[in-house]
Amino acid sequence: MSDFIWKKSGQGDGPGEAVMQFLAGEDVVLDRQLIGFDIRASQAHVNGLAQVGILDEDEARQLVDGLDGIAAALQAGDLVLDETFEDCHSALEAWLTERLGPLLGGKVHTGRSRNDQVAVALRLYMKDRLDALSALCVDTASVLLARARDEGHLPMPGYTHLQRAMPSSAGLWLAGHAEAFIDNAQLAALTRDWLDASPLGTASGFGVNLPLARDAVAEALGFGRLVVNPQYAQNARGKVELQALGALGAATADLRRLAWDLSLFTTSEFDFVRLPDGWCTGSSIMPNKRNPDVVELLRAAHGTVAGARTELESVLGLPSGYQRDLQATKPPLLRAFEAGLQALALLPELLAAFEWNPDAMQAAISPEMFATDLSVDMAREGMPFRDAYREVGSRLGQVKAEDAVQSLENRVSPGACGALELDRLAARLDHLAKK
Amino acid sequence: MSDFIWKKSGQGDGPGEAVMQFLAGEDVVLDRQLIGFDIRASQAHVNGLAQVGILDEDEARQLVDGLDGIAAALQAGDLVLDETFEDCHSALEAWLTERLGPLLGGKVHTGRSRNDQVAVALRLYMKDRLDALSALCVDTASVLLARARDEGHLPMPGYTHLQRAMPSSAGLWLAGHAEAFIDNAQLAALTRDWLDASPLGTASGFGVNLPLARDAVAEALGFGRLVVNPQYAQNARGKVELQALGALGAATADLRRLAWDLSLFTTSEFDFVRLPDGWCTGSSIMPNKRNPDVVELLRAAHGTVAGARTELESVLGLPSGYQRDLQATKPPLLRAFEAGLQALALLPELLAAFEWNPDAMQAAISPEMFATDLSVDMAREGMPFRDAYREVGSRLGQVKAEDAVQSLENRVSPGACGALELDRLAARLDHLAKK
Amino acid sequence: MSDFIWKKSGQGDGPGEAVMQFLAGEDVVLDRQLIGFDIRASQAHVNGLAQVGILDEDEARQLVDGLDGIAAALQAGDLVLDETFEDCHSALEAWLTERLGPLLGGKVHTGRSRNDQVAVALRLYMKDRLDALSALCVDTASVLLARARDEGHLPMPGYTHLQRAMPSSAGLWLAGHAEAFIDNAQLAALTRDWLDASPLGTASGFGVNLPLARDAVAEALGFGRLVVNPQYAQNARGKVELQALGALGAATADLRRLAWDLSLFTTSEFDFVRLPDGWCTGSSIMPNKRNPDVVELLRAAHGTVAGARTELESVLGLPSGYQRDLQATKPPLLRAFEAGLQALALLPELLAAFEWNPDAMQAAISPEMFATDLSVDMAREGMPFRDAYREVGSRLGQVKAEDAVQSLENRVSPGACGALELDRLAARLDHLAKK
Amino acid sequence: MSDFIWKKSGQGDGPGEAVMQFLAGEDVVLDRQLIGFDIRASQAHVNGLAQVGILDEDEARQLVDGLDGIAAALQAGDLVLDETFEDCHSALEAWLTERLGPLLGGKVHTGRSRNDQVAVALRLYMKDRLDALSALCVDTASVLLARARDEGHLPMPGYTHLQRAMPSSAGLWLAGHAEAFIDNAQLAALTRDWLDASPLGTASGFGVNLPLARDAVAEALGFGRLVVNPQYAQNARGKVELQALGALGAATADLRRLAWDLSLFTTSEFDFVRLPDGWCTGSSIMPNKRNPDVVELLRAAHGTVAGARTELESVLGLPSGYQRDLQATKPPLLRAFEAGLQALALLPELLAAFEWNPDAMQAAISPEMFATDLSVDMAREGMPFRDAYREVGSRLGQVKAEDAVQSLENRVSPGACGALELDRLAARLDHLAKK
Repeated sequence: MSDFIWKKSGQGDGPGEAVMQFLAGEDVVLDRQLIGFDIRASQAHVNGLAQVGILDEDEARQLVDGLDGIAAALQAGDLVLDETFEDCHSALEAWLTERLGPLLGGKVHTGRSRNDQVAVALRLYMKDRLDALSALCVDTASVLLARARDEGHLPMPGYTHLQRAMPSSAGLWLAGHAEAFIDNAQLAALTRDWLDASPLGTASGFGVNLPLARDAVAEALGFGRLVVNPQYAQNARGKVELQALGALGAATADLRRLAWDLSLFTTSEFDFVRLPDGWCTGSSIMPNKRNPDVVELLRAAHGTVAGARTELESVLGLPSGYQRDLQATKPPLLRAFEAGLQALALLPELLAAFEWNPDAMQAAISPEMFATDLSVDMAREGMPFRDAYREVGSRLGQVKAEDAVQSLENRVSPGACGALELDRLAARLDHLAKK
Repeated sequence: MSDFIWKKSGQGDGPGEAVMQFLAGEDVVLDRQLIGFDIRASQAHVNGLAQVGILDEDEARQLVDGLDGIAAALQAGDLVLDETFEDCHSALEAWLTERLGPLLGGKVHTGRSRNDQVAVALRLYMKDRLDALSALCVDTASVLLARARDEGHLPMPGYTHLQRAMPSSAGLWLAGHAEAFIDNAQLAALTRDWLDASPLGTASGFGVNLPLARDAVAEALGFGRLVVNPQYAQNARGKVELQALGALGAATADLRRLAWDLSLFTTSEFDFVRLPDGWCTGSSIMPNKRNPDVVELLRAAHGTVAGARTELESVLGLPSGYQRDLQATKPPLLRAFEAGLQALALLPELLAAFEWNPDAMQAAISPEMFATDLSVDMAREGMPFRDAYREVGSRLGQVKAEDAVQSLENRVSPGACGALELDRLAARLDHLAKK
Repeated sequence: MSDFIWKKSGQGDGPGEAVMQFLAGEDVVLDRQLIGFDIRASQAHVNGLAQVGILDEDEARQLVDGLDGIAAALQAGDLVLDETFEDCHSALEAWLTERLGPLLGGKVHTGRSRNDQVAVALRLYMKDRLDALSALCVDTASVLLARARDEGHLPMPGYTHLQRAMPSSAGLWLAGHAEAFIDNAQLAALTRDWLDASPLGTASGFGVNLPLARDAVAEALGFGRLVVNPQYAQNARGKVELQALGALGAATADLRRLAWDLSLFTTSEFDFVRLPDGWCTGSSIMPNKRNPDVVELLRAAHGTVAGARTELESVLGLPSGYQRDLQATKPPLLRAFEAGLQALALLPELLAAFEWNPDAMQAAISPEMFATDLSVDMAREGMPFRDAYREVGSRLGQVKAEDAVQSLENRVSPGACGALELDRLAARLDHLAKK
Repeated sequence: MSDFIWKKSGQGDGPGEAVMQFLAGEDVVLDRQLIGFDIRASQAHVNGLAQVGILDEDEARQLVDGLDGIAAALQAGDLVLDETFEDCHSALEAWLTERLGPLLGGKVHTGRSRNDQVAVALRLYMKDRLDALSALCVDTASVLLARARDEGHLPMPGYTHLQRAMPSSAGLWLAGHAEAFIDNAQLAALTRDWLDASPLGTASGFGVNLPLARDAVAEALGFGRLVVNPQYAQNARGKVELQALGALGAATADLRRLAWDLSLFTTSEFDFVRLPDGWCTGSSIMPNKRNPDVVELLRAAHGTVAGARTELESVLGLPSGYQRDLQATKPPLLRAFEAGLQALALLPELLAAFEWNPDAMQAAISPEMFATDLSVDMAREGMPFRDAYREVGSRLGQVKAEDAVQSLENRVSPGACGALELDRLAARLDHLAKK
């Protein structure tokens, strides 16, 4: 590892090798996901310094161009962020200094600290990932609504307690999951807006003795407002990450439920759904197996998000101010978004690809499942519902199967099989998609 | 325990006593917190049934009045929700039937299931508790901002890594925690709006064969929109609770940090803060002790919220549709809000009551803490910051203490000690307080 | 609330009412589960004081008898531990002083602190609950092994990925769950032994200037060794509780899996298992429902244990020494053991009561499930297994159903259907049952 | 990625590229930590097949030698486990087949499944890591005990509630942490023994129709017993991992507390401890900083373990039998042991290297801290302790400082400063070290 910017010449040997490896952790590798945001923020910072006269126009332009050059070199593979650096932040300063000389390179860090530099890059990253999350939720809901329009009428048994309850429809199932992902898209958007505040210009947690143009810098970076207080800019670390993971976890938890349904429906016993070959695997010992591994791993994906939340929670029991523990909030955040979004990204295609087995679905609608509709019919005619419930319950064996399609059409309470209200859901979805 | 509404006469012995106790759990006792919301929702449901002609006007009025009577009787202690009932939902139907006779009492449950009845009561409860959370966060931030205005100028050492870093001020500390609770108030409000949707009228998860006036009922209850899909009304159980706890947990985690600061600042070694006697306790063996127990229990309060989240998460790995496991989401939700809000409610008074020890704070500002401001001064004069940093670092022993008050006034980057921007924070707070 | 033992006369008003309620929490009510252990430990402490000459024989006898009297009065309901006390520890001293006068009552606390008093009561409690846990696991495994002996031969489809895999047997399923609970019983016993150390005599975390007979006191209480170091006696709080919950959680997680199997097997689609009426409930709206609520709540029971672990974890990020936060470790511990053991206690009866549906089990064994046995047969004859696997896989449609009973008998690898090794499991169980 | 062993020729296109990447996850890279254990287990399996006549002696020898060759080639870098393989298990079979031809290579998988192959490799891995954990705990405790012998007499203030409580000593602090790590070493050993059971020979969860020599194979691999039941061999996945992480987490939680102490003691305000330069870092903006980053990251290390537990917990809510979700238990296990052991490995050196500041420690012992000893002295003379406590409490200002060293020597209750009982702790440590 190269020298550290904070290394003092007279300070003795500095940290030993094992200690340095421990300190570095996976930071530099993870920072490959952050360095693009750091470059953008550094450019805005430099322009802000010019605005208040700390840099002249020419210095600022050279630094901005230098950062562009670094971005291009990273893109082209001419520069690589590796273990020779402590993190992406010190790499940037080192590369700039190498390219522009120490006189200019040594000026980029004026008025900022790695503390606010990390914080702003992470906020930009989270906004970006929450946008991606929202978009995936919108895509997922769109596929589900489209199928609900096409196949919504297919009768399907409805379950509570995993016991056959009432006749239901593929449409109810599809629209139900669609509404879940509409809520998830909205949550991602709300969370993004809630954390859309720039900590840049708060330095190490106490500000600096310069009249930084914080508002202009924030606006240039597309932030909606400032994290005003420098202490809070540090104290908020982990806190905003937890909410970002909360929004991600809402989506992966719904993914888990959807995957559970598909896992159940692809058993030989239920047999309501068939997955295309591309979504199945075999066994190393059993020649007869055709396993829904993808669905099972989708079901498991929420674990990474839940684990990351706990990991984050675990390091936050601290007094105010930056402490190195806060650096440990980065790996779980990045790990969870990578795993969670990768899983969610498969969902639209999977949901478009699976096939219903209408015969098996129809065959599983047994006569006693019409009992509730019958009781309600009697209640509509004036019998107290509790009496109708008891009377139908006392002669369950005589309840006759009805035409399921007709029966579902009669289920007209808003949202039910006979009135799915897909337009209402679609309108909410459109509203979110446009944001 | 009394009879169950679902009990069939010919069904044999039914659940045994130990099984029934296990099934009941703490449900009925917890339901004391929910029954008020259930009564309101039942009245709206009854009016909705009248609107679509299932009940006539007179029946609806009698049922609504009957529910008012039950509410009054509960208030007066003439009715008690205890273990003789399965839960508050069956208690309501039983009491109504007792008061109005089986002909009328037996009609209240027409077109609904306990599934949507529970869900709507819980949504109303969460909206109410999130409003309370938001209000407590607003109160907390107000006290902090008021003190920041009054005592903001007091010099105080600033720490990173718990090491002395730069001169800071009581104002920076107070305003930093204030901004945290402004964010928390906003998060509570956003979360409340996100879950502000009525599941009433979705019955057991499949709707009913009645043209229920779901929108009108939702509006009467003050909901912003419907949970449209009946399946999602059940699948959302636990999901919305987790987000509600997420908002609560953001506040209790900030409470933890604030309590940590106070715990540290009341040590003999720091000695920056003195708590009034009313906030301290003694020891059973050590006559000399004066312990900040309250502060420590406030620090611990987040644990109940974090534990409740895990408890909730743990039961949600299920396929779609209502399953009894979902009933296990109720205890952790209620427990966490009770404990979390009780702790947060102490905060405004505590924050108004503690006293600073300005002498100790001033004494802890040692000369080398002015090194950063000095380096920035040199950078402003044109020296590359990195050079200034190195030069000052090489002669740290010669850095002279400056007048702290003057030094803090020079810290003029927005949000820093010389420009706390309390008005900006107050404006955001006012905006939230008015919502 | 009554006066506090640490209350100083000249100390002003002391904590206000809201603060006191917050401080008390649910402590006193929870302490009803601990006071018996506290009485035992207090008696041992008193005898220890006599042994080193701090009390004379007569004083010790009076105190021990006084504590016996209190235990009897609590049992009879003549004394009640309620909110008039801070906790069970101060209640004991108050009651003793009331009964024996301040001269003698004031001596019981010589040489100890509430810190070690709480710690020893909790260790005794955990040992007791882990013994109960171990016994319940032994009972559960016994019922399962007994059924495996009686019905082990019943053919049953075996699943991986919830897909039909190979013919299996009720015996394999029953013995598999039995072995799980044997492991759980052993884990409970190991954990009990690991924490079987007495903290009594470490006072507030620094010991006392008295030559306490700690070893003798520990032996009198049935402890295997001392927590030697007074600081560790406090630092271990929460740590040992987490391991106790770890043992409990292993059992409740296995309970969850078992309940999941029963939930799946009682669906109409699988239909392998029938639960007696006493284990089922109905619906408030659907007259036709017969729901396995008990099984679902058993599946959910693990949540309370998992949540309690998180709650405990959350308060332990502290420096050394007693801090009031540690008191917050008590509620989750007691709550989790109460809920977890209540659920586990239903298991032996449930497992004895459910009935298999052999016809449905047999019918679900489809021909292609014999493919693996066939491949292995070919490999035994000398064909490379991978070739046999491919060959059988290429003509799956031609694999013929065999006699399942015969096929299972041929599955002779130790532990498999043809060699369940129930005696080996029973021997391990007997060994644990005798401990 | 290369072909899959389960790939059928007539099966269409198989999984798409995005799906395959999702399926593969980080499996192959993680498997670099497992492949050595897989090789050992495969050799034992092959020998077992020879023992029951499925392979002849020559075949077995060739396969064992082939596996040795693969191990050597991996060691030398001639073979690399990379993304061209699905996992280490299929890589082994592919390499063997390449080296020995399909006739022989195709025989290694006879009588086993990847399910038991993974399970046995993971058990071997966990035993190995728990041994390493135990050894690190022993080392840590040894260093602490050695310093307790040398510097145990140094007076140091003792804290409860972070408030000055009673005079204490460096010895009490050192021995307290030592006893914690002795408990941790024992827990690691107990957990290792509890999970020391071989699942090899249970195939995919149903055993096979071969009389496998499971006991002999287990013995050859050093296992203490079998996982008898094939279903349990799969159901135990995640369960044993959680207990292994429970043992690791006990150690990292104690590490967190120790690091918290050092973080507090290295503040300017406490100033009890100085860390050598090699353990400190600087700041990017503040020239004056000397930060205990290592100590802070050690404090944070527990988070990875806690997060891994949650991640594991999250995927285990499943019915019986292998499901692909279980594969998701591998990453958190490996990640947590890697991070946890790396952190713990720094501890012995750190604990040997830090220096006490005896002057600051002595100066922080204020007179009122002698009040408790004084009260106990009075109680020893016959005054009821509660009276002595009150009397001393009423004249706290007059309590005189005593000679701290003498006072500590009088603290003679076993384990206290005057009777640290280091020999007793050392004896327990020796016993564990020898295991």
